[in-house]
Amino acid sequence: MDEFPHERQVNEARRQAGAVRPTLAVTTGEPAGIGPEISIRAAWAMRREANCVLLGDAAFLALTASLIDPSIKLAALSVQALRNGGLPHFGPERIAVIDVPLAAHVIPGTLNAENGRAVLATLDLAVEGVKTGWFDAIVTAPLQKSTINDAGVAFSGHTEYLAEKTATPKVVMMLAGVPGEGQPPLRVALATTHLPLKDVSAAVTREGLAQVLDIIDRDLKTKFGIAAPRILVTGLNPHAGENGYLGREEIDTIAPAIEAAQARGIGCSGPYPADTLFQPRYLKDADCVLAMYHDQGLPVLKYATFGRGVNITLGLPLTRTSVDHGTALDLAGQGLGLADCGSMEAAISSALHMVRAQRAAIH
Amino acid sequence: MDEFPHERQVNEARRQAGAVRPTLAVTTGEPAGIGPEISIRAAWAMRREANCVLLGDAAFLALTASLIDPSIKLAALSVQALRNGGLPHFGPERIAVIDVPLAAHVIPGTLNAENGRAVLATLDLAVEGVKTGWFDAIVTAPLQKSTINDAGVAFSGHTEYLAEKTATPKVVMMLAGVPGEGQPPLRVALATTHLPLKDVSAAVTREGLAQVLDIIDRDLKTKFGIAAPRILVTGLNPHAGENGYLGREEIDTIAPAIEAAQARGIGCSGPYPADTLFQPRYLKDADCVLAMYHDQGLPVLKYATFGRGVNITLGLPLTRTSVDHGTALDLAGQGLGLADCGSMEAAISSALHMVRAQRAAIH
Repeated sequence: MDEFPHERQVNEARRQAGAVRPTLAVTTGEPAGIGPEISIRAAWAMRREANCVLLGDAAFLALTASLIDPSIKLAALSVQALRNGGLPHFGPERIAVIDVPLAAHVIPGTLNAENGRAVLATLDLAVEGVKTGWFDAIVTAPLQKSTINDAGVAFSGHTEYLAEKTATPKVVMMLAGVPGEGQPPLRVALATTHLPLKDVSAAVTREGLAQVLDIIDRDLKTKFGIAAPRILVTGLNPHAGENGYLGREEIDTIAPAIEAAQARGIGCSGPYPADTLFQPRYLKDADCVLAMYHDQGLPVLKYATFGRGVNITLGLPLTRTSVDHGTALDLAGQGLGLADCGSMEAAISSALHMVRAQRAAIH
Repeated sequence: MDEFPHERQVNEARRQAGAVRPTLAVTTGEPAGIGPEISIRAAWAMRREANCVLLGDAAFLALTASLIDPSIKLAALSVQALRNGGLPHFGPERIAVIDVPLAAHVIPGTLNAENGRAVLATLDLAVEGVKTGWFDAIVTAPLQKSTINDAGVAFSGHTEYLAEKTATPKVVMMLAGVPGEGQPPLRVALATTHLPLKDVSAAVTREGLAQVLDIIDRDLKTKFGIAAPRILVTGLNPHAGENGYLGREEIDTIAPAIEAAQARGIGCSGPYPADTLFQPRYLKDADCVLAMYHDQGLPVLKYATFGRGVNITLGLPLTRTSVDHGTALDLAGQGLGLADCGSMEAAISSALHMVRAQRAAIH
């Protein structure tokens, strides 16, 4: 690993003007999973476009990088150095690493609760770094919830944790990806996320949908630079309830929520039957589909984006993207070189696009 | 319209040997919708492969055909002639029509309950014809349930009606299509179909899944000629319940049903998370995905098959395929030439493949 390069602090004016590659905090996730490998490979592949700063155990990441490809160069910095001197400017010759040391030796594929708190510390540092101005956005590799819980910290997921850390009352999960070369991105936001199917109907409320539509509309404007977002809303029931024959939530809840949002100036429409909505003739006029629940929207999104979907958290006061897959412990346990870093590259790429759109809006 | 051609009866031995094009009853559906147009266009386009016999009002179909393309030739036969003399052999120079007269003049785009019973009569005749041996399979164009109900006949859909007519206690809805040139077909069967989302959990039972898996396995063998079908089963909840954290139906109902089916020799596995199951690395080893409910399985199927999905009813003692769309009254009202007959062609093509597979199994 190279010595920490004492280059000058980034000039904020140049950064804002887009002359400097956006700086992204990349939390490397569960160390026993594929997170470290895909973080290194994706950051290295995209080093000329993004200044990816990996947050994780510097020694472990250096070892991993050397095994992936000896030509990958890392430059490590301690958290203390970062806090004292700020983030130096890194060129595209190396990937920056901020050392967040693990407590225990990593055995790929085998979870160890002793390392749970270090994983959480990378998230804390990423949030601190965005608030401080070191980072333009956060990209997260997959972590294992159980490792953190087993370390004695109640933890229900990246998204919930980031919301809590930033005192955000409501966030919206959106997955996005490009269905094919030259095609517009497909974006699917969810009105409800990780809850049992039988609880979904009760969780879909007018107030909840109002908040979700407001967040989607605002974030598509402010984070994606879309001037007048167009949102297509699905129904909850098959055929969007078929005029009440297959359920009344569309009539009682969803349609009124859409009308109210329209009255607030939000460009939304629906409710539409989910099975026929995902067709080019409808999607070509949409910036986002709002699905009512997880398995209504995500199978088609993940199919369409070939494992290169990106998870984007809307509603946070910061920009955060993530992969759309898990830690793949089994794969990690079999050695390096098996994991697909496509979703991680897409997550970095999406964060880049969003940062550029935000810079363009300022100027 | 040509005179009825007095050609000789089809020789059953030749038909069974595959020397004769399969004969398919095509019910032309709601006359005010796009059914008549897509039936004619698809039957004409595929006349060299399939002997499509249209069931509908002969005069109206002849008028429609002449407006679509004056070179389309129809040959009409009365139901009485059919019953007296059987179905004659039709060559690929014309499309056969069996006249089931409508009660009222058709205004495209405008429903008329006076014609409801005639639509139903085409279904009755199709079933009679398969039982009698005139037809190898039934292909149905979309109908409008309300027209039939408004005509005074309680009617909840094609599938239910055909089940009742054939005394079939349980049927399974499957949609299928080809995602792209040279790719294997994607088939998605549903454990539950048209019911409100909040009722889905209670409708998924071990006994129900046992019946559904038995029907899928048997029909993939007997109707599709697949020697050892491989069925992938989804979970009900997000992430297939995540070990009980997001619902217990996988543990209490679905996994036991899968194990019981495996013990009966059925090649099924799961439950798998629906959002990640529809990926080539899983689908390449599957003949069918069993989804738990409508909007979990159909958005991705319809996206993947570009509006060329086919609805296949499993469990019936006959082969029936259908389009995966509705009557499109608005389109029909705007005139001919606007409807896409891709799904109808695919429905005919699927029926052909199934009839050929059944013939091959006999010999």
